[in-house]
Amino acid sequence: MDPYPKPLRDLISQLKRLPGIGEKTATRLALFILADKGNLPEDLSATLKTVREQIRLCPVCFNLTDRQKCSICINPSRDQTQICIVEEPSDVLALESANTFRGLYHVLHGLISPLVGIGPEDIRLSELMERLKHSGVSEVIVATNPSVDGEGTFHYISKMIHDAGLSIMVSRIASGVPMGGELKYMDQVTLASALRYRRNIKDF
Amino acid sequence: MDPYPKPLRDLISQLKRLPGIGEKTATRLALFILADKGNLPEDLSATLKTVREQIRLCPVCFNLTDRQKCSICINPSRDQTQICIVEEPSDVLALESANTFRGLYHVLHGLISPLVGIGPEDIRLSELMERLKHSGVSEVIVATNPSVDGEGTFHYISKMIHDAGLSIMVSRIASGVPMGGELKYMDQVTLASALRYRRNIKDF
Repeated sequence: MDPYPKPLRDLISQLKRLPGIGEKTATRLALFILADKGNLPEDLSATLKTVREQIRLCPVCFNLTDRQKCSICINPSRDQTQICIVEEPSDVLALESANTFRGLYHVLHGLISPLVGIGPEDIRLSELMERLKHSGVSEVIVATNPSVDGEGTFHYISKMIHDAGLSIMVSRIASGVPMGGELKYMDQVTLASALRYRRNIKDF
Repeated sequence: MDPYPKPLRDLISQLKRLPGIGEKTATRLALFILADKGNLPEDLSATLKTVREQIRLCPVCFNLTDRQKCSICINPSRDQTQICIVEEPSDVLALESANTFRGLYHVLHGLISPLVGIGPEDIRLSELMERLKHSGVSEVIVATNPSVDGEGTFHYISKMIHDAGLSIMVSRIASGVPMGGELKYMDQVTLASALRYRRNIKDF
């Protein structure tokens, strides 16, 4: 017989649907939530209910927003001539936290991945082309992950812009040994890339 | 400027209140919840809302239940002469999953802990004594954790039952090297306990 009362078992089952949360962690979280002296379950329940009602995609860059357009697109101080292309909204958040890029974004919501049947028409590429044709963008920085699909999508975008006859520079984020990383733990492809794309000291 | 829309930031803040979940994990979970194609946020929100409304403490053993009394207390096939004393409801779940103990439980909801100001009156000890006086219990198994507070609470319960003149046997769960554990990784106190409470082969 299940020693858990049904509402607790239900909560554990729902928590287990989250990534990286198994039976043990879900049980620990559920018991913590139950034992909370404050309003944790009520607050969490309320935010979960509203998050999908209020969050939509920005019609320009397809980043997440709770307004008409996202906070980056409506910010006049952002550089309107650079667009950084990323796979997911979480990539925008990561890049924004680096506080370096001052241009605009374009979120693809996926990568071209022939093996799982995701083609160019399944991600926000036609919207990107429309955007590039009707704006004064001079550089597109492709910041997809350095994976097989990320590289493939980069080459596809590069060719697409070239074929459309747009005079826009296409660049790719640097790949190499991450800051604080150790060479001995790096894979061969990363090391090969770090050597191949070494910089002349004059460029520093 | 915060690149997160407010409803998403709110959800991340709420998830961060959970134990072992920091900024990064909370962000990952929030984005996963947002991107879910099914009803994950709604289902999770609903279970969180009902869990505290429906779960109460069993008035007999103080285990969690969604009924009048808990499923263990109302089960007539459980041995009514043994009571296993534990600190928290999660300990009941752990022991039940071992499928060995067939008696009843008593959940203290804490341990005597003079350093943080938790005295015998702050945990369910008076309820335990009332229960022992008016039932046919012949053995009390103290299954608090083998910590300073767990041992202290064990000795307090033992003395309390002795002082009340009840003819009830008080026992303590065994302490030693866990099954599958390795001696070289064990601490000294555990090894000392394992040696001191060694069993004669005749008892196997």
